[in-house]
Amino acid sequence: MTMSTYLDTNSGALTAAETLREHGHRLIDQMADYLATVDERPVSTAHAPGELARRFAAPLPREGRPADEVWDDVWENVVRDAIHFAHPMYMGHQVAPPLPHAVLADALASLLNQSLAVWEMSPTGTVVEAQVTRWLVSAAGFPATAEGTLVSGGSVANLTGLLAAREARFPGSWTDGVARTPDAERAVLLVSGHSHYSVERTAGLMGLGSEAVVSVPDRGGKMDPAALHDALRTLKREGRIPFAVSATAGSTATGLFDPLDEVADVCAAEGVWMHVDGAHGASFLLSDPHRHLVRGIERADSIAWDPHKMLWMPMSTGAVLVRDGRHLNAAFRQKAPYLFHARPGEDRSWDAGRMTLQCSRRFDALKLWVSLQHYGADHFAGLLETTVRTTQSLHARLAAAPDFEPEHAPESNILCFRHLPARGDDFQAELRRRYNESGAGWITTTVLDDRSVLRVTLMNPHTTNEHLDLLLDGLREVGRGIT
Amino acid sequence: MTMSTYLDTNSGALTAAETLREHGHRLIDQMADYLATVDERPVSTAHAPGELARRFAAPLPREGRPADEVWDDVWENVVRDAIHFAHPMYMGHQVAPPLPHAVLADALASLLNQSLAVWEMSPTGTVVEAQVTRWLVSAAGFPATAEGTLVSGGSVANLTGLLAAREARFPGSWTDGVARTPDAERAVLLVSGHSHYSVERTAGLMGLGSEAVVSVPDRGGKMDPAALHDALRTLKREGRIPFAVSATAGSTATGLFDPLDEVADVCAAEGVWMHVDGAHGASFLLSDPHRHLVRGIERADSIAWDPHKMLWMPMSTGAVLVRDGRHLNAAFRQKAPYLFHARPGEDRSWDAGRMTLQCSRRFDALKLWVSLQHYGADHFAGLLETTVRTTQSLHARLAAAPDFEPEHAPESNILCFRHLPARGDDFQAELRRRYNESGAGWITTTVLDDRSVLRVTLMNPHTTNEHLDLLLDGLREVGRGIT
Repeated sequence: MTMSTYLDTNSGALTAAETLREHGHRLIDQMADYLATVDERPVSTAHAPGELARRFAAPLPREGRPADEVWDDVWENVVRDAIHFAHPMYMGHQVAPPLPHAVLADALASLLNQSLAVWEMSPTGTVVEAQVTRWLVSAAGFPATAEGTLVSGGSVANLTGLLAAREARFPGSWTDGVARTPDAERAVLLVSGHSHYSVERTAGLMGLGSEAVVSVPDRGGKMDPAALHDALRTLKREGRIPFAVSATAGSTATGLFDPLDEVADVCAAEGVWMHVDGAHGASFLLSDPHRHLVRGIERADSIAWDPHKMLWMPMSTGAVLVRDGRHLNAAFRQKAPYLFHARPGEDRSWDAGRMTLQCSRRFDALKLWVSLQHYGADHFAGLLETTVRTTQSLHARLAAAPDFEPEHAPESNILCFRHLPARGDDFQAELRRRYNESGAGWITTTVLDDRSVLRVTLMNPHTTNEHLDLLLDGLREVGRGIT
Repeated sequence: MTMSTYLDTNSGALTAAETLREHGHRLIDQMADYLATVDERPVSTAHAPGELARRFAAPLPREGRPADEVWDDVWENVVRDAIHFAHPMYMGHQVAPPLPHAVLADALASLLNQSLAVWEMSPTGTVVEAQVTRWLVSAAGFPATAEGTLVSGGSVANLTGLLAAREARFPGSWTDGVARTPDAERAVLLVSGHSHYSVERTAGLMGLGSEAVVSVPDRGGKMDPAALHDALRTLKREGRIPFAVSATAGSTATGLFDPLDEVADVCAAEGVWMHVDGAHGASFLLSDPHRHLVRGIERADSIAWDPHKMLWMPMSTGAVLVRDGRHLNAAFRQKAPYLFHARPGEDRSWDAGRMTLQCSRRFDALKLWVSLQHYGADHFAGLLETTVRTTQSLHARLAAAPDFEPEHAPESNILCFRHLPARGDDFQAELRRRYNESGAGWITTTVLDDRSVLRVTLMNPHTTNEHLDLLLDGLREVGRGIT
């Protein structure tokens, strides 16, 4: 018996398998050609969003059109004006140019479409994910009681960790609500001054209110443990209940690491849940020379870790790890007789959906498993060390140049700086805008101490010193045009 | 300049592009062969989770191994014991065998790795997503004021819609928390008796408490509008504040549709936000003969819609639509100078991250855009109608057979039934377990009116009447072995 053509009637007489084969080979060649020549493209588009949107404006098509025509459209209208993360002059946000085997594994995951909500819908997917999570747990130095799952990214990882914290400190808030749970209305979440917006958002989401978030003062761009201790004591004196501290391992703006070990000391002394947003920086656990930056992470109660950042996975590959797995199990509750079935004779339920915000969840673990098996963890450490070394090299160039000023010494692969002399208040932002529109390179901007600065993240291990020189020269040239 | 080998040093001297080409072609052939012969495999594995887990138990590999060896492992150890949704005897949960062009588009999305958080990280991705969302909005009959985004699936879509409802009814709950927002502690969420667990979970998550969820009594497996009206009036008399009603379009257990138009009448009369969990059933909007099932959905305030169910997309492809876009914008709040930049001269921000729980979010819209362009919406309607017709055919067979009993007439492609005579309390569950383990087919089970029943979802348009006969004969044969 062969597959009929239901799933692909618009490809003439092709079966789904034939379509996949024919168009798949063509696509693979186009993807490989794209990757081989990506550095000949402008890094990103010069078009404004409204202009690009007009290309696609059309009513819902009721009838289809030939696949080749649609795919030509994709390459001409979608890919051409995409942003190209594999370009070595891309130095923007923390998004990776993914590893080729990870991209291929993602294609297989899409075909298999295993659903990680329950074991029976992903018999091997569930156990592969459990193994990958176990590797992350052990790299983090967590004990055997720890549990974790892959999630859609740092935002959901932070939410999950802090939901577990809420329930641990205010048991019953899930069922009774925070207004009816003793003391929950006095809850305070302490965060790094430079924490990612998704951390602050958890309090708004969870019903504690974003006003319940207190920023701990920084010292040199990092959480100040003494200030944290003061804040905790002051809040307690005021009758507030600090239920969690969210420290940052690799802040978005500067890539600096909070002193996790000292933060852990304070959290232990005050009996407060310690969450680490390691979306960017937890991957530094794999690197011998850089592991010291995350010393103390093993004392956290929960960790967010995004393999789609510094492990070069395609989105979405996030992870949340919780030291005491019981807290993760208590973070969510559900009754669903159509879905969760106990298996006789098994010593625990394998259904990951018990512990995840998502129900349907794709087999993102496959690409991480394939990549760790093929490349090995040391290879990832090497990629990471390369990007940090290049960032240090950029810092040295900036410090030596009379017309540039680094804002900080880099600890990771993120660096903020300014081009001098600053001509007017929004010079840096305008410089960035024009430089990016030139297509020659692509960087970002942020605000540090109320001052606009330039910012790069060197995500591409192919970015070399030669590209750094091109960056500085390019900024100089664009800068001269701004009056 | 060519790409160096940083990204692929373990593939010998291959560049990333060469790796993608060489291993990509091999993978495409394997994927096509898999699809061409999937019906020769057992539908799922007979192994227990613990057995499968032992295959993968190993410490984190520090060094890699050859790619061919890893991929052989994937086919032998992962794929062989996966569950095969493309098999026509798969009749289980609501997970699709994805369309081949959607699978291919997913591979390209992984390579490009556009991040839909902000426009500048997905210049064409953002506008393609906006266009796809606009198509869903228009299919739903929503006005031009509506906004929406793709999300990871129904759970996050339900959460997002109901977060918008919380803020609309209790303004300030995001910032002040539900304990400090006037009246928020009196909030009640009304849901269908058969609603998906993710709907009830939103109340626990949002700090309102899962106790704040009230199930509206069913009539014939559907929300009873008169009972809803009674419940609303009673709750108000008791001083509670019903802030949202979540109706279900295609319930998980039975695939039946709540009478949305009558529910909308009640919500309008009582001034309550109407959310529709159309994860399964909103796709019926595309079908002329079946659109009547979702009549009234255009009057909802928010809709959850999963293209990864009845539009045959790979996971994760969910969508949330909100009638008045301002409410969606108010559902989340953030400050993030490193990320969200206003663009001078644009009339609105294109950054979708303002409206999404996720920050990093993959370009899932590409596969839906490619598929709608190539296949056309009518083709999707045809696939959907085929699966409903086959489900009706199964119902007729069950009704005619002396040893089977359908639990309800199917409205969609989900049907619950029992095999008779039931030999003991857990006969149906045991029958299901043994039948699935045989590899001949794969179905699910649930509990209706405290009674265990068999349940199928016909997700595969290749499933024909011949397969239905195999299902019934297979259940009979397995049933005879149970004493």
